[in-house]
Amino acid sequence: MLKHFEVSDEIAVRVPLPALRTTTEAIFMKCDVPEDQAQLGADVLLYADLLGVDTHGVSNMLRAYVQDYKNLALNPTPKWRVVKETPTTAVLDGDRGLGLMITPKAMEICIEKARKYGTSVVVIRNSGHLGAAGYHAVMAAKQDMIGWCMTGGGNSLIPTFGAEPRLGTNPIAVAVPAGKQPMFIFDAAMTTIAGNKIGLACRNGKKLLPGWVAKKDGTPDMEGGAAAEFTPGTLRMQLPLGSTRELGSHKGYSLAAIVDILCGQLSFASGFSTLASDRRGHFVAAYDIAAFGEVDEFKANMDGMLEGFQRTKPAPGHERVIYAGLSEYETEIDRRKNGIPLHPEVVSWFKGICAEFSIPWNLTKQV
Amino acid sequence: MLKHFEVSDEIAVRVPLPALRTTTEAIFMKCDVPEDQAQLGADVLLYADLLGVDTHGVSNMLRAYVQDYKNLALNPTPKWRVVKETPTTAVLDGDRGLGLMITPKAMEICIEKARKYGTSVVVIRNSGHLGAAGYHAVMAAKQDMIGWCMTGGGNSLIPTFGAEPRLGTNPIAVAVPAGKQPMFIFDAAMTTIAGNKIGLACRNGKKLLPGWVAKKDGTPDMEGGAAAEFTPGTLRMQLPLGSTRELGSHKGYSLAAIVDILCGQLSFASGFSTLASDRRGHFVAAYDIAAFGEVDEFKANMDGMLEGFQRTKPAPGHERVIYAGLSEYETEIDRRKNGIPLHPEVVSWFKGICAEFSIPWNLTKQV
Repeated sequence: MLKHFEVSDEIAVRVPLPALRTTTEAIFMKCDVPEDQAQLGADVLLYADLLGVDTHGVSNMLRAYVQDYKNLALNPTPKWRVVKETPTTAVLDGDRGLGLMITPKAMEICIEKARKYGTSVVVIRNSGHLGAAGYHAVMAAKQDMIGWCMTGGGNSLIPTFGAEPRLGTNPIAVAVPAGKQPMFIFDAAMTTIAGNKIGLACRNGKKLLPGWVAKKDGTPDMEGGAAAEFTPGTLRMQLPLGSTRELGSHKGYSLAAIVDILCGQLSFASGFSTLASDRRGHFVAAYDIAAFGEVDEFKANMDGMLEGFQRTKPAPGHERVIYAGLSEYETEIDRRKNGIPLHPEVVSWFKGICAEFSIPWNLTKQV
Repeated sequence: MLKHFEVSDEIAVRVPLPALRTTTEAIFMKCDVPEDQAQLGADVLLYADLLGVDTHGVSNMLRAYVQDYKNLALNPTPKWRVVKETPTTAVLDGDRGLGLMITPKAMEICIEKARKYGTSVVVIRNSGHLGAAGYHAVMAAKQDMIGWCMTGGGNSLIPTFGAEPRLGTNPIAVAVPAGKQPMFIFDAAMTTIAGNKIGLACRNGKKLLPGWVAKKDGTPDMEGGAAAEFTPGTLRMQLPLGSTRELGSHKGYSLAAIVDILCGQLSFASGFSTLASDRRGHFVAAYDIAAFGEVDEFKANMDGMLEGFQRTKPAPGHERVIYAGLSEYETEIDRRKNGIPLHPEVVSWFKGICAEFSIPWNLTKQV
């Protein structure tokens, strides 16, 4: 389970973005990742940090990647290749490279094909973690396309009525450009909550809320109050979005299955036919808006819809109604100006790895 | 609100499929629908009845369509046309025809394009209800493609933290072919439960379960026990899949928004920029499996996955773990053999409309 540290204003250290970027790139390069790939990997990680998706930024993920480079699970200089290709599709083999770098390459191919033919789907097998799926979806949205990215595999989610995990948290990310409004960016796991939140609760000794996990026998825990660990060292099984059959968990389970199919079966990645726990596949798609109509009209219509969501009368206790991507947009403005908040433990990890890798220490200067 | 009658074995009349098909086709034709279109419309309706999706079969929907033909809301002889087209995309204008007949046409175009180029997306504006979205997705799956169909519009779902409805129930259907196993068919609304279940509870005077609807002020009703009607004649607002923010309702809300965007914004249908309650758009997509690899290998891998789901140890109180499409497959076998169960009220409606339209009565003979 990857580490996660919740950042609170009391204890967070604000680190300037450029220094964090330089340091992250240097760490990748010390793992033998070529400079341009290191820059790309850092960009994907810092996208998450900028938008406030701290679970997928430098705090949690970088140390996991370094560990996997060290133990040779990841190939720092992959020779990725196109295994199969048609006018609008491609299947890539990532040669055990990190998904952070191969997925943007897949999305570039996808965008080029969608520009030419209207739509495109590119899938990736034999590749590591892709970071925040939203990063790759946004690449297409910036090109006036609807962008889509998913990653499937792993066993942490139990099917409805099941007592054993069979699917990963299997996030779906979709990005849609707008005009004046910040773009719509959805990026979420098909479990009730993100996997890292279970890990966080475990380390903090916090009890879990109702609807997040299953009891030992598979029954959804709707009372809450359970410890995150099932047995020492084993975290509890997560429930699909919907939690119980009555609340629609068969929908979360099925959506997670669709992610597994599109990422893993369509890329013919290994382990998907047996639901092996270490299976992994990625999926990106792009739909060129110009193939359907006028881009400016589409964006103006999107503005109207997104403004409509925001004009919705809020329920008591809530200041406003937002849409996916809006609070992330606001967080990005704050963090670009005021720096990325890091937990002191994360700063300490950076200090240690910089010393180990003989990288100049530049994260002391706060914004 | 459309009528729905839950079928129980005690009171259901089993009607043979061929007789029900003939009668349904005749009713469409009496509404001035041409014969081939009437046959297609009946096929889409009976798909739902065969699979046990009674909310979208003849019981609920046919009378609504007849009403809309009578009041000229629907055009029985639409001149649908391709408004815009690229190698892999098309935008159709349905000329106020029923979605039941235009959506299969859209999927035919989609399949042809996907066969040639690998992937395709076709969207439809200015068209009525499309029946069970799964029907159209399955068309592609039968051609060894991953099929996808969605329909967006209407206001019955309240956004997370909101107190007013902004989105429809916005179902997503995805069909994936397998080998020996029944194909995977997901078809579900992005609200906690289907809209018709609220209407059913209303007519039966049943109380609602926790997590299905919002209280008057928008707060999710997690206690349950509310009446389905908010004020006389107005049904309660539905919660997104996830019910509350803590249980992930922002995911259901965002998925419903994505459906609205892909169906309505991408088809440039009217009313989507203002979230008008009578807006409607449809979306179909097909991904040709042969564009990604060997179809037989894909199907064998799918079999492995689907068998894996079924081999999952069940939680206490449950006999087995299933996947989307499996119980529908079993229902279809039963209903093809033993007939379609209809509530006596539905048989009575058929009797009345057959008398009105001078259609020979053939639903008496039971299986």
